[in-house]
Amino acid sequence: MMGHYRVTGLREACGVFGVFAPGRDVARLTFFGLYALQHRGQESAGIATCDGHTAYLHKGMGLVAQVFNEENLRPLRGHMAIGHNRYSTTGASHIRNAQPYLIETLHGPLGVAHNGNLTNALHLRRLVLERGVGLSSTSDSEVITQMLAAPPEAWLNGHAPPVNGDGVDDEWVARIRAFMRLAKGAYSLVILTRRGLYAVRDPLGLRPLCLGTLDEGVVVASESCALLTVGATYLREVTPGEIVRVDDRGITSFAGLHSPTRALCIFEYVYFARPDSLFEGQVIHEVRQRMGRRLAHEAPADADIVVGVPDSATPHAIGYSLESGIPFTEGLTKNRYIGRTFIQPDDKLRQEGVRLKYNPLPANLEGRRVVLVDDSIVRGNTAGPLVQLLRDGGAREVHVRVASPPVCHPCFMGVDMATYRELVAARMDVEAIRRHIGADSLAYLSLPGLVAVVEEALEKPTGHCTACFSGEYPIEIPEWLFAENREKLAFEGIWGS
Amino acid sequence: MMGHYRVTGLREACGVFGVFAPGRDVARLTFFGLYALQHRGQESAGIATCDGHTAYLHKGMGLVAQVFNEENLRPLRGHMAIGHNRYSTTGASHIRNAQPYLIETLHGPLGVAHNGNLTNALHLRRLVLERGVGLSSTSDSEVITQMLAAPPEAWLNGHAPPVNGDGVDDEWVARIRAFMRLAKGAYSLVILTRRGLYAVRDPLGLRPLCLGTLDEGVVVASESCALLTVGATYLREVTPGEIVRVDDRGITSFAGLHSPTRALCIFEYVYFARPDSLFEGQVIHEVRQRMGRRLAHEAPADADIVVGVPDSATPHAIGYSLESGIPFTEGLTKNRYIGRTFIQPDDKLRQEGVRLKYNPLPANLEGRRVVLVDDSIVRGNTAGPLVQLLRDGGAREVHVRVASPPVCHPCFMGVDMATYRELVAARMDVEAIRRHIGADSLAYLSLPGLVAVVEEALEKPTGHCTACFSGEYPIEIPEWLFAENREKLAFEGIWGS
Amino acid sequence: MMGHYRVTGLREACGVFGVFAPGRDVARLTFFGLYALQHRGQESAGIATCDGHTAYLHKGMGLVAQVFNEENLRPLRGHMAIGHNRYSTTGASHIRNAQPYLIETLHGPLGVAHNGNLTNALHLRRLVLERGVGLSSTSDSEVITQMLAAPPEAWLNGHAPPVNGDGVDDEWVARIRAFMRLAKGAYSLVILTRRGLYAVRDPLGLRPLCLGTLDEGVVVASESCALLTVGATYLREVTPGEIVRVDDRGITSFAGLHSPTRALCIFEYVYFARPDSLFEGQVIHEVRQRMGRRLAHEAPADADIVVGVPDSATPHAIGYSLESGIPFTEGLTKNRYIGRTFIQPDDKLRQEGVRLKYNPLPANLEGRRVVLVDDSIVRGNTAGPLVQLLRDGGAREVHVRVASPPVCHPCFMGVDMATYRELVAARMDVEAIRRHIGADSLAYLSLPGLVAVVEEALEKPTGHCTACFSGEYPIEIPEWLFAENREKLAFEGIWGS
Amino acid sequence: MMGHYRVTGLREACGVFGVFAPGRDVARLTFFGLYALQHRGQESAGIATCDGHTAYLHKGMGLVAQVFNEENLRPLRGHMAIGHNRYSTTGASHIRNAQPYLIETLHGPLGVAHNGNLTNALHLRRLVLERGVGLSSTSDSEVITQMLAAPPEAWLNGHAPPVNGDGVDDEWVARIRAFMRLAKGAYSLVILTRRGLYAVRDPLGLRPLCLGTLDEGVVVASESCALLTVGATYLREVTPGEIVRVDDRGITSFAGLHSPTRALCIFEYVYFARPDSLFEGQVIHEVRQRMGRRLAHEAPADADIVVGVPDSATPHAIGYSLESGIPFTEGLTKNRYIGRTFIQPDDKLRQEGVRLKYNPLPANLEGRRVVLVDDSIVRGNTAGPLVQLLRDGGAREVHVRVASPPVCHPCFMGVDMATYRELVAARMDVEAIRRHIGADSLAYLSLPGLVAVVEEALEKPTGHCTACFSGEYPIEIPEWLFAENREKLAFEGIWGS
Repeated sequence: MMGHYRVTGLREACGVFGVFAPGRDVARLTFFGLYALQHRGQESAGIATCDGHTAYLHKGMGLVAQVFNEENLRPLRGHMAIGHNRYSTTGASHIRNAQPYLIETLHGPLGVAHNGNLTNALHLRRLVLERGVGLSSTSDSEVITQMLAAPPEAWLNGHAPPVNGDGVDDEWVARIRAFMRLAKGAYSLVILTRRGLYAVRDPLGLRPLCLGTLDEGVVVASESCALLTVGATYLREVTPGEIVRVDDRGITSFAGLHSPTRALCIFEYVYFARPDSLFEGQVIHEVRQRMGRRLAHEAPADADIVVGVPDSATPHAIGYSLESGIPFTEGLTKNRYIGRTFIQPDDKLRQEGVRLKYNPLPANLEGRRVVLVDDSIVRGNTAGPLVQLLRDGGAREVHVRVASPPVCHPCFMGVDMATYRELVAARMDVEAIRRHIGADSLAYLSLPGLVAVVEEALEKPTGHCTACFSGEYPIEIPEWLFAENREKLAFEGIWGS
Repeated sequence: MMGHYRVTGLREACGVFGVFAPGRDVARLTFFGLYALQHRGQESAGIATCDGHTAYLHKGMGLVAQVFNEENLRPLRGHMAIGHNRYSTTGASHIRNAQPYLIETLHGPLGVAHNGNLTNALHLRRLVLERGVGLSSTSDSEVITQMLAAPPEAWLNGHAPPVNGDGVDDEWVARIRAFMRLAKGAYSLVILTRRGLYAVRDPLGLRPLCLGTLDEGVVVASESCALLTVGATYLREVTPGEIVRVDDRGITSFAGLHSPTRALCIFEYVYFARPDSLFEGQVIHEVRQRMGRRLAHEAPADADIVVGVPDSATPHAIGYSLESGIPFTEGLTKNRYIGRTFIQPDDKLRQEGVRLKYNPLPANLEGRRVVLVDDSIVRGNTAGPLVQLLRDGGAREVHVRVASPPVCHPCFMGVDMATYRELVAARMDVEAIRRHIGADSLAYLSLPGLVAVVEEALEKPTGHCTACFSGEYPIEIPEWLFAENREKLAFEGIWGS
Repeated sequence: MMGHYRVTGLREACGVFGVFAPGRDVARLTFFGLYALQHRGQESAGIATCDGHTAYLHKGMGLVAQVFNEENLRPLRGHMAIGHNRYSTTGASHIRNAQPYLIETLHGPLGVAHNGNLTNALHLRRLVLERGVGLSSTSDSEVITQMLAAPPEAWLNGHAPPVNGDGVDDEWVARIRAFMRLAKGAYSLVILTRRGLYAVRDPLGLRPLCLGTLDEGVVVASESCALLTVGATYLREVTPGEIVRVDDRGITSFAGLHSPTRALCIFEYVYFARPDSLFEGQVIHEVRQRMGRRLAHEAPADADIVVGVPDSATPHAIGYSLESGIPFTEGLTKNRYIGRTFIQPDDKLRQEGVRLKYNPLPANLEGRRVVLVDDSIVRGNTAGPLVQLLRDGGAREVHVRVASPPVCHPCFMGVDMATYRELVAARMDVEAIRRHIGADSLAYLSLPGLVAVVEEALEKPTGHCTACFSGEYPIEIPEWLFAENREKLAFEGIWGS
Repeated sequence: MMGHYRVTGLREACGVFGVFAPGRDVARLTFFGLYALQHRGQESAGIATCDGHTAYLHKGMGLVAQVFNEENLRPLRGHMAIGHNRYSTTGASHIRNAQPYLIETLHGPLGVAHNGNLTNALHLRRLVLERGVGLSSTSDSEVITQMLAAPPEAWLNGHAPPVNGDGVDDEWVARIRAFMRLAKGAYSLVILTRRGLYAVRDPLGLRPLCLGTLDEGVVVASESCALLTVGATYLREVTPGEIVRVDDRGITSFAGLHSPTRALCIFEYVYFARPDSLFEGQVIHEVRQRMGRRLAHEAPADADIVVGVPDSATPHAIGYSLESGIPFTEGLTKNRYIGRTFIQPDDKLRQEGVRLKYNPLPANLEGRRVVLVDDSIVRGNTAGPLVQLLRDGGAREVHVRVASPPVCHPCFMGVDMATYRELVAARMDVEAIRRHIGADSLAYLSLPGLVAVVEEALEKPTGHCTACFSGEYPIEIPEWLFAENREKLAFEGIWGS
């Protein structure tokens, strides 16, 4: 009986940041790091710091620039910090679930910032509750924090041989190893302790995590764009399965849990990461342009102009244009001040076609045959209206080209992708989708094509997670998670408000 | 090595409330119950409710009427609730420490509202941390909550024989008994679980707790005034050492931990409780009038009028007047709208004598010899200015009469009484205090007199805690707690902000 | 066509304060002055200051201690200030109507704080609108401010001969005189200009206003209690019809508008003013005791104890006790933390008798015949429940004695007294009221008795407004204001939200 | 002596919106209209509505989505509304200055939303003050509102012959004409009255204003993008000098004040307007592409790629690419979540080069000769760092091309352009600027080129304001406004806080 919790609570795509830098204003550094990672989560933000003895915490709902001001940043003293941006998923939006979690343990403060999703989160939660430890939220991260608060024996008793056989004399490493032994799924963690930080990445490397250096310190971040933002120099990625310790002894690497295969989420390349970030040695923007080039090769179109869905598909569209020779231009404008609003259009406004986000540019579209390049189609709600907008703007033909394969399978490793029922490509074939969105033609980049583009520049490709496209999950997914009606199977725990 | 925490964090005098009443709006009932108990704590307020499956929580800083509005009260659904008012002590004022605490356990929700102070709180805290459980605040109440979240064996292993030998088949009773076995000091608890409430009082009965009935339910409160406020009928006190369970099986009493002696705080009679509350079968107001009468008998004065320090000493002053035959009147007015303000007088205002709280009434004072009755003198800061105000108003003589003995010893059982250094009667004898406050004469009620007054109407007096007057503590107090400089001895834990 | 506005908007009973004191923190002084005047208005508070060139303003909804903090007080620079507490009337509660009003004029800043009510407010409003000046609120005070912004000719043209014929060379005095010529009703004003303050009182002196001195400045306040609070020395009242200027030339008195009669509101003596304030040379508390004495004389009772309705009727009850020889005691306790709450009892709570404000003290009541003294009965809603509470507490008989005559007529001069329909004494005779409230006997102080008590110590009694008791209004009241349904007659102006 | 006010207070570039639509939720429509116009002002937002009798207002600081929620939008009832976004200028940022202004007049509610800047604002302000009308803010718009509140004679007496000689029987038209007769400078107004709206544009048409239709109503907006957003159909521009009335009689046009020349701000074309808006029948995006094409023609470059400064210069860059044949690509990424933050980088962060807004894309830049196209250079602070970023990203050469002429003259007609001292092109020649920004070459579009591009598609070009480029102001600018030190010359009025 595992299904105690709403599955919506499981999916979290977030940004994490950490810094160890004696002499620096680490809370401020973390603020700017989170600012650069804002695209990874807009629901809540938080920073925890430590001066080696006392720890400080502030978190709140909203964008990092809304949560923090000089007044609440100033008390966050110390020489190390961790920070977190949480993704806005529907429901379960409560300050109680905001990160980082910070608790007092026998060994001093312990803070955790977590990006990813544990596929056996309910099992771990049950282990904690069965041990007689109460939990004050529905967050996986609180579970992780309480697991790390107890010695390894508390969890591994009978489950596995001792993990600290290599003589490493670091209690936190031992505890993190015990956690890694039990945890399944995706996790990139930044952990704050009295003496230093730990950066941890799951053995498959499902979610990104990288290291950088300052003159006087070390920075950890979900994406390299945050390193550049705070003036740090990119050092390397945290290796899948690795535990990196950062403290006054410098950067130390420990073996965490080994896996023969790797599986960095390929969707980070397609859409999620910021275009100026670096994964596996390659700049995202460049990889996206290559996707567009490959798409032009695989799915040419007889057209006059190439238009990208702003802003995320602009690199793919430029690639398509460069390869096809069809000129790139803008066909749609986007309201740059679109922010979260709680005001909903009424029926009449909806009916008359309120256009909050995009408008067509007739001068570029009038009488033209248009290739509309998008990075991906997930639910299929936006492509149809965009095709219509282009036609309203005078486009003669609209050929939709998608720079990734059809998304047919849900993600359980930290990207908010819905159930089968919500994924348009799980319900329809390409021709049906074409009709659904009203395009003159529709084509997707092939999965081999996508993988080739991502891996072509890598010296030793080690594999990527393509589960949302291929259905081949790099880890075992419990049957009940797939259930169309899993929300009904699951309970919400005790938490009402 | 016990002194890990700031002692200021130890002292808590609060109000607790609980209700089990299917069919009633229990959050609203709890709101009005806390409203009636507001005098017991003004720093923060909170309510947790449960519908038998899901639990709901809202808490915030400030008065109960500031914390709650219709919008945040409405979601607090269910048929049982607990609530808490927290006392405003200097420092450590943080929403993190607001009560009730609510956690998820293997057996569903667990909420705790606590009035009192554990003298071995640091020991219990250490037990919890040593077990590998992290804590998210400095509050004793979180420690209690986590202790109750684990089975009795978790804490009693090796310390004591099993406590559930009487065959009681209630897991929560077993856990509460384990807690009572380990805890020392003052605690009146209201505990929320999936099936019902538990009301628990320490074996000495240091802090009050009573029961009342509604047509369709049961109410628990620190003081009976809260029962009357919500239309409940007073039933009885929770017996010291008793565990009372309230659920769909009705009210059930369990033996918790027995003590041969009792020690209800006598200072509740003197000052802390609301005058219309009932302790041990007697209305506080009446007992206070008796204190005044006894004081008039023990320490008569040759004077024209009796004036009480408004509003707390009015009953004592009326008693003095009735016994002495000297007419009672008002000699000081009090600003009825005095509330917490963050604006401080500047030096010039202080120097010119800003009078925010009291003003004299010359018409009643002019040329008169005045008996000024106060309920108690703790720090000795207010009596001097009041004597001066009376003289400014024309009083010819001012004879101060205090309706309780000199406060010479700090309290470690839940009333915010300071260190020896701060207690004026621990530093000066009566004559020195008289000179210090500028009175023509000064006399206190004797301790035997106070005890006699409190116990005269009781059928079977079972003892009261008079430690603040006598230095005879009903429980062992660790040496370090007495240390004048214990704040320096103690650490603040990890919590900076 | 006069009835454009809701009558609720007309009734305002407020507190005003002003200070001119180079070298002092005048905003802070004003804060504490308003703090002392909080009983005169709890809806909003505001302070305007001026440094002789620039003016500063902050106002907000709520108690003065809620509106102001160090952060918003600090920018209020200068050497003179005015402040205002606004009364909480139902409806029309909007920051737009908060005072002081501050505008820029040709002659620099102009700020107005107003206590009172103009009976021809709609006429003046119309004058302003007809002159082509727009208004941004429904407040009389904005009307006054705009009237003072224009030269006298703007308003008096054709209405009256020039008023500045005495050669006074002060433009503001001329403008204030023009306003006084046109205004009818009650007004105590404190006016802020570039060079200094003006304190103005209507010719009848309907609302109080007094002056005090600091070492380095002058203070103006609705009541003397505010002078004492800020360390000022009481100087004198502003004479009815007088204009007092306070600036670097000192205190200068100008004739404003003379009236042969005076009419200070007698209800200020009965209830409204703070007991430690001084009107016409006598302390309010003393006058109230005299009311109680006279009441004992006029309406004796055969009883065992005298109880006052806390806290307002305590002085009257003490007087009754002193005169009658029946001992005074407390029979009711009042929740000291009663504050504004937005949570309403539900039906069940109402039915079971929620007791938020008062509780009986059985020990003092049991078997006794009680005289319950109240200061006044206006709507008659509270007396009945109080009588019942006393009986619940064991009182054998309850004799209600009211220290003022029956309130039979509405007030249009600044005290929030309702329509005829709402005044219980306008609908019932004394015997009917007695039955309505369930008392064993009921008696009021006579009007001649009240007037005699108020005037007995005055050297030269000049008359008081007793309209609410006698129906004899000191000024002409427009017929429509009396209309039972005047709220329907009246429009709300343009202001919806 | 005109210079009483800070010049910073004079410059306002804002967005206005109005709707008359019985049966529709006009406040909601206005919300979405303001949402679409957010780029024109981010400091404050407000909406006023009217139901023909009562008027409603809500305004606040921040973005429109921050200011409004369902709770404060709902009470804004009626069938007509006006709205305003205010631009964020340094200083003078106070809710007092937020628009719309709403007052009560003799003829009912009067609301004004204003985009533009009056060059004789101080003169008009003085007229109002001299008439004895007080002002509660420093805003020009309050001055306009009070001018419209009075009949024409109030202002024109002696200045000019009556303006309503054409027999138009509309009092508001007469008042608007009187205002137009006196006002100098830029103003696009939307005015709310009891019966309907008025849309007014200054005779030169300096700021845009257009009309659209709904099934059941009429919409007015600064830019056509707001019409499309709310589902309206574009009708036409408000003609310079025209007064358009919208009420239950439909759309009626009145002659306001004629000017032989027109002078729509050409900088709206270059930068300020949203690319999908329509001015003078042409879509802004298309005109910007033409600017880029012309720039390529006038100032070719020997380069490998064309990069635009995102996002504003993308259309210009695409045009440059299309004309020159040099491929367009992205060379810089922009943080899409950049929002207003109050946290400032510390010195160390600044020194290490915090990169909050842009990052380079090395893959596109490495070894390339880059044309960096920007829309304009005003202060010259951003171009230098961008050139450096491109070089950091590997660019071999950087050729900066600016799609408008050097900005050499301040604007006094509603765009926030600084003093001569702050304009880099007023201090340096092109070669000096090139060195200053570190570019390999630098060229601007010529003024004749810009004008030709803007006017080439117009049937009958009527002139544009090019003052910021040419120094030829379409209206007389008072000498003191040019003064380098005008901020010191000017007073701040009375308003301190």
